[in-house]
Amino acid sequence: MPIMPVTDSMFLLAESREHPMHVGGLQLFELPEGAGPDYVSDFHRQLMSLVDVRQLFRRRPRGPVGTVGQFAWTSDEQLDLEYHVRLSGLPRPGRVRELLELTSRLHGYLLDRHRPLWEFTMMEGLQGNRFATYTKVHHSLLDGVSALRLMQSSLSDDPSDMDVRPPWSPRVRTDVFSGGGRARESAAFDPVRAVQDLFQEVRGFGSATTKVINEAFREQSATLSFQAPRSMFNVAITGARRFAAQGWPLDRIRAVGKAAGATMNDVMLAMCSGALRRYLLDLGALPDKPLVAAIPMSLRTDASIGGNAIGIILCDLATTEAEAGDRLRTIHDSMLRGKAVYHGMSRLQILALSAVPLIPLAVGMIPGMVKVAPPAFNVLISNVPGPRKPLYWNGARMQGVYPLSIPYEGQALNITVTSYAGNLEFGLTGCRGTVPHLQRLLGLLEDSLVDLEKAFS
Amino acid sequence: MPIMPVTDSMFLLAESREHPMHVGGLQLFELPEGAGPDYVSDFHRQLMSLVDVRQLFRRRPRGPVGTVGQFAWTSDEQLDLEYHVRLSGLPRPGRVRELLELTSRLHGYLLDRHRPLWEFTMMEGLQGNRFATYTKVHHSLLDGVSALRLMQSSLSDDPSDMDVRPPWSPRVRTDVFSGGGRARESAAFDPVRAVQDLFQEVRGFGSATTKVINEAFREQSATLSFQAPRSMFNVAITGARRFAAQGWPLDRIRAVGKAAGATMNDVMLAMCSGALRRYLLDLGALPDKPLVAAIPMSLRTDASIGGNAIGIILCDLATTEAEAGDRLRTIHDSMLRGKAVYHGMSRLQILALSAVPLIPLAVGMIPGMVKVAPPAFNVLISNVPGPRKPLYWNGARMQGVYPLSIPYEGQALNITVTSYAGNLEFGLTGCRGTVPHLQRLLGLLEDSLVDLEKAFS
Repeated sequence: MPIMPVTDSMFLLAESREHPMHVGGLQLFELPEGAGPDYVSDFHRQLMSLVDVRQLFRRRPRGPVGTVGQFAWTSDEQLDLEYHVRLSGLPRPGRVRELLELTSRLHGYLLDRHRPLWEFTMMEGLQGNRFATYTKVHHSLLDGVSALRLMQSSLSDDPSDMDVRPPWSPRVRTDVFSGGGRARESAAFDPVRAVQDLFQEVRGFGSATTKVINEAFREQSATLSFQAPRSMFNVAITGARRFAAQGWPLDRIRAVGKAAGATMNDVMLAMCSGALRRYLLDLGALPDKPLVAAIPMSLRTDASIGGNAIGIILCDLATTEAEAGDRLRTIHDSMLRGKAVYHGMSRLQILALSAVPLIPLAVGMIPGMVKVAPPAFNVLISNVPGPRKPLYWNGARMQGVYPLSIPYEGQALNITVTSYAGNLEFGLTGCRGTVPHLQRLLGLLEDSLVDLEKAFS
Repeated sequence: MPIMPVTDSMFLLAESREHPMHVGGLQLFELPEGAGPDYVSDFHRQLMSLVDVRQLFRRRPRGPVGTVGQFAWTSDEQLDLEYHVRLSGLPRPGRVRELLELTSRLHGYLLDRHRPLWEFTMMEGLQGNRFATYTKVHHSLLDGVSALRLMQSSLSDDPSDMDVRPPWSPRVRTDVFSGGGRARESAAFDPVRAVQDLFQEVRGFGSATTKVINEAFREQSATLSFQAPRSMFNVAITGARRFAAQGWPLDRIRAVGKAAGATMNDVMLAMCSGALRRYLLDLGALPDKPLVAAIPMSLRTDASIGGNAIGIILCDLATTEAEAGDRLRTIHDSMLRGKAVYHGMSRLQILALSAVPLIPLAVGMIPGMVKVAPPAFNVLISNVPGPRKPLYWNGARMQGVYPLSIPYEGQALNITVTSYAGNLEFGLTGCRGTVPHLQRLLGLLEDSLVDLEKAFS
């Protein structure tokens, strides 16, 4: 197998105990009617019998062989499926609390590099006639959006479809594997990869691009006049993770957006803003200046060049404002101004401009680099569109799906939301040592939405 | 807090994904009469309320600060007890198989260095009215024997004693913490520490000791005429672990020993020998020459110098012999010869001689060192004496206790046995990638004991 591209091997080189470089997904399923107590373990055994594993899930890193630290991929022909596909039980009483506790733990430790870089855990013992799965994939193998897509591609929109298709099966639809293409363009889930993509593109374009990037830099500095304050989220992080997740009906969010003349994405950001404000206030740690969020957005570029590009919009979260309505209005204006910056730009210009606030993250991944500059932003919030219709796995209806992302050095909290079957699903991944009582943010998100509903009723 | 001694910090420096440096213990308990379904989670909650944590369990490493890589201990005053003390459920049907599967997984990943280096997991959902605990402690904090003692010290021999005393509580008897003293002398559980102890002692004794060590080397090379063959256990190892455990009645082992004129330790080694022979035969991997085991033994030294010392005895396991009786006789003779080598030696001579076969392990721990020499032995087998009387934890009778040890580079399998309340408890810790179907050895140990019973009936 070939030497890995630098974009892949970087995730292996930069990884350390403190910075695991894997993404994850938590999926909740309803047990189908008539499922007995052994349904999940029978299902697990059935999965174990599907020994056919697609090439991507056999890949494991080899090296670094030389001093340059370049990794190569090799194929594991003696894959130990029992190692990768696990069955776990939740302790009683098997509430969502116990589920998130176990998921946090699973997301906190490193993948074994001597094996293909993925784990799949089925979890039984969940209250309310449900079970769950947690998927963990190394970033050098799949980025977050592709991983979410991959999980969805192994499901069916037909509840009577009883054909088991785990994500690692060669029989799963392969359109999600078409590389960086569609999946990566739909949302810049991954700030470090975005910077790397830029560098690759710039190299491809040659020296003429220096001028383009310089222009973009000037334009940015003129527009982004606010500066992110230092906050408790922008510190060196440790290895353990805490994960919290919950869904909210899209109808509630849509109603607020309609009444306020804002987009659903604005309302989602306002929910985050209100929750973060309350969380920081309770800890006596709310900065005097408003928090700044980095939001990856799919942007239409200059039509003559064609296509879409991902731009990073730095959004004023208005966490210093006490009223929910005021916060939403400030966020809405900030997002409009952010999008306007990119108006008429080419794809490369958008890439170059977006990379600027992300570069500290990429630099922070290199072992030994210490961040001394103030943060370019305080929290990364991604919104990844998901399937509208309910999906099924062997007749088990998927009730919810929640993304687990990567906290970076200096960015201890990541919020990723995805839509699914009438809900907006929030996944909050935090550094356990830095972000205490992360799960409290779930209640605060609900409070925040209620405040918005009151402000615009 | 002070800079760590080199003997402690070495375990932190040498640790890598492939070589986790923690020891563990698995304890099985019977649920007390009348225990309801929430017994374990109530117990867990009770433990969480004991926020008083002794200093040893607050220690976490800081550094390396300089280029010399010396670690210092620091005290964690904001210890997150919820992180360290965990509650897990076993998947159905909750057999020992599911218990060992989870324990293997827990033993396979690294401890978080940003926190005090221990984890304690309570496991519910075990068949037969039982629950289990798994304790994981970093080797820089406690060696294996001390960790076993520590777990025992938090138990009571009185079933009506309902005073909860988890191992991290300051109210637990502290005699196990008295450092290297008694605990370390009772069995050289830990080959690398033994080598380090030697180097420390030699440094203390000055240059005159060179002569002593040279004499011991000569004596050894004259006596240990056999050489360990290369085997599948003596290769580079990977990070994941597999653990198997089972107890056998001491009465059965004693009966064979009596009939054969051998010690119980000889019979235990003969059980291992027969099981390893069958295991390797089934894999077509039995070496032509007999496997050699390294056995730490407590030895009486020259009375004029006084005291005991740990000697490593290299024992011919006779795995090339087909008859169980012949194997036991060869093992018995080999152990007698091994002990005779040390006869009349001083403590330092015993230390020096014992260190010789262990040095490759110590060297193999240093990152980048590649072992090219043939192995000095094939498998490390330790026998740690344990309590004779049944112990109780808040009325829950401990049914069994099984040690989990550290496979080293070039030593993919470790067998540690301990006695408890009329049983000899075997704990087999293997590198998952190198030692396939480790649990098969449990059945082969039983077969091996049956063969010995037949041979001497």
